[in-house]
Amino acid sequence: MKALEGLKVLDLTSALNGPFCTTMLADHGADVIKFEPPAGEQCRTWGPLDEKSGESGFYAFLNRNKKGCTLNLKNEKAREMFYELVKDADAVVENYRPGVTKKLGVDYETLKKINPKIIYASGSGFGQYGPISHRPCYDIVAQSMGGMVNLTGYKDAPPVKVGPSVADHVAGIYLCVGFLLALYHREKTGEGQHVDVSMMDTIFTLLENSIVKTTMQGIIPERQGNIDPSISPFDIYPTSDGYVALGVGNDKLFRTFCDVIERPELVDDPLYLTNDLRCQNYENGLQQLITEWTKQHTKAELEEIFDEAGIPCGPVLNMKEAIEHPQIQAREMMVHMDHPTIGEMYFQGCPVKLSKTPPSIDTPAPLLGQHNQEVFHLDDETYAQLKDEGVL
Amino acid sequence: MKALEGLKVLDLTSALNGPFCTTMLADHGADVIKFEPPAGEQCRTWGPLDEKSGESGFYAFLNRNKKGCTLNLKNEKAREMFYELVKDADAVVENYRPGVTKKLGVDYETLKKINPKIIYASGSGFGQYGPISHRPCYDIVAQSMGGMVNLTGYKDAPPVKVGPSVADHVAGIYLCVGFLLALYHREKTGEGQHVDVSMMDTIFTLLENSIVKTTMQGIIPERQGNIDPSISPFDIYPTSDGYVALGVGNDKLFRTFCDVIERPELVDDPLYLTNDLRCQNYENGLQQLITEWTKQHTKAELEEIFDEAGIPCGPVLNMKEAIEHPQIQAREMMVHMDHPTIGEMYFQGCPVKLSKTPPSIDTPAPLLGQHNQEVFHLDDETYAQLKDEGVL
Repeated sequence: MKALEGLKVLDLTSALNGPFCTTMLADHGADVIKFEPPAGEQCRTWGPLDEKSGESGFYAFLNRNKKGCTLNLKNEKAREMFYELVKDADAVVENYRPGVTKKLGVDYETLKKINPKIIYASGSGFGQYGPISHRPCYDIVAQSMGGMVNLTGYKDAPPVKVGPSVADHVAGIYLCVGFLLALYHREKTGEGQHVDVSMMDTIFTLLENSIVKTTMQGIIPERQGNIDPSISPFDIYPTSDGYVALGVGNDKLFRTFCDVIERPELVDDPLYLTNDLRCQNYENGLQQLITEWTKQHTKAELEEIFDEAGIPCGPVLNMKEAIEHPQIQAREMMVHMDHPTIGEMYFQGCPVKLSKTPPSIDTPAPLLGQHNQEVFHLDDETYAQLKDEGVL
Repeated sequence: MKALEGLKVLDLTSALNGPFCTTMLADHGADVIKFEPPAGEQCRTWGPLDEKSGESGFYAFLNRNKKGCTLNLKNEKAREMFYELVKDADAVVENYRPGVTKKLGVDYETLKKINPKIIYASGSGFGQYGPISHRPCYDIVAQSMGGMVNLTGYKDAPPVKVGPSVADHVAGIYLCVGFLLALYHREKTGEGQHVDVSMMDTIFTLLENSIVKTTMQGIIPERQGNIDPSISPFDIYPTSDGYVALGVGNDKLFRTFCDVIERPELVDDPLYLTNDLRCQNYENGLQQLITEWTKQHTKAELEEIFDEAGIPCGPVLNMKEAIEHPQIQAREMMVHMDHPTIGEMYFQGCPVKLSKTPPSIDTPAPLLGQHNQEVFHLDDETYAQLKDEGVL
């Protein structure tokens, strides 16, 4: 049994933040039915594309465990068919630009009249209200305006965005939190509601002490590369074959650290006596000294040495190394899936491990319109007719 | 009414990922009681510190809405007092290094004997099982080993970590998802369970198409600065007073874009005819040409121009600018709180907006041991005695 078994979710999402939310719901057992325009949603054209079939690997990993229908919501008959499904659905999830669902007649105000218990979850760039809620948004814009880009990168160098789409993904996870909160409330009261999550808000919530530093001390934090302003040594160091991350959190561990790097005299050096002093004097001396030592070792050597010493340390892994890492493997963070046109796939698994109701990945992403007849209960003739009419 | 009202959560977390989870539970109405060692948890010493009181601003924003107790779990009497509270609690949340709760006698196996309905949520660096689950971890290590650091930064330059602690925060959000999934399952079945979330898994789930690119095409993606490999133009550009992020997602928008930058001839340039061609020829020509134009404008000018054109664009905001942004303000992403020793504070709000059960921030973070007498029902004399005995 999975946690969300028996729940029916109508999925109007496309691209990334919305689908990432409904993927979690599907992995945990909800019956997620995804609706795309008859031409397919944008992310069906996003790479990597399968050479043989042209199918999108991006779409395929992101939409596993879901059923797929096509539906032209600009068509009145299509809208009526959707309303029919809303009657006994538990939730609708969407990530249109605010305002669009109203034009399409599938906004919360409309759907709650059909089913007052419906939970309606909306993901967007800037949220459902506020002066710029109408604007289009990409992950890179949300990262920039939310304040994260200015805090990432090296001092005295241009800012850099987080490589992967962190605004989209984390907004999707928050949307899942919102759905589950609303679900619990509905269990207690029978009442549905509207959940609203924005990518800009999402990024803003990840900035931790930078915010209080600004408001309490009037200091505007700037990017610091890989250094932590309040722990030292704490950095990413070059080795003979790549990079390792390393953090020495307190005086006791610093003593161990000095032994490990065979520089026991540093412990009593007045420049490095306390963590505060090490932070102050890190960039003029300590950093260089550690770097010279780490460069003489491999990543694997350093990982082993510091594991034994009980000092947090780990290599900077590339994508292949991360995929093959024994910990990722042991935790089934990569799963195999047979896709009807792509064939054998190997992609990311589920991070939320539940002892009694474990998630799992059971079915591949749907082909375009694959479940139209099943979901709408259509015989072959009616199906062909609706396709002709541009409804599906 | 808030979504989680009436739930009692015993909070054994410290530092960042665990507390970020319980903050969300508290913001949404759960009665969260935080237990710290008698000396206080580590993050009470993390800056920024209030000049007058020495109180940690970091602790204060992260532990709002919670009650605070001290409890020396190495003491048998303390443990018995904790067990007493477990009897009618709904959940325990912890983020000790795996193995430690067992030593302290507060692991899931022990507590579920006292209360089989208990939901037990564990956050950690590497998870509760797997070959390196025992290791200590910092956010920077999880970011590195999870694969994100290698994908962040400029090509041909060293890798860079995401500035803020994204592994800690997002693991905390996943832990909240796990708790809520387990809560819904318990509503249906009366059954408690163990939730296990790791920071390394968390980072790994955010890497999207880099994973499928590796497994489908055998290509190991490398960092690309602010460029997107599959959309062009898509970058962060220098302006006369800072940087803006900008993404032009399709041919139609590229035509608009060329008009806006007053280079209509680019539309028919054979180098830039399609998105694919623009991606191929971006770095030898197009990037430079756009940069020369953006440098002649201010951030605000560009934001306005592209808002009108319907092209996703936004400035790279520093912390002060993000805090003061009208959208952040309109969405109450900054809230005021009166703290008993720090005084007036101004810190981050709640990102998950619920129409019927909105979250709110009602009480400041607890002083050390502030709710000992209330939570354990102690008269002054017994309280003083338990403090003397080192129990609290």
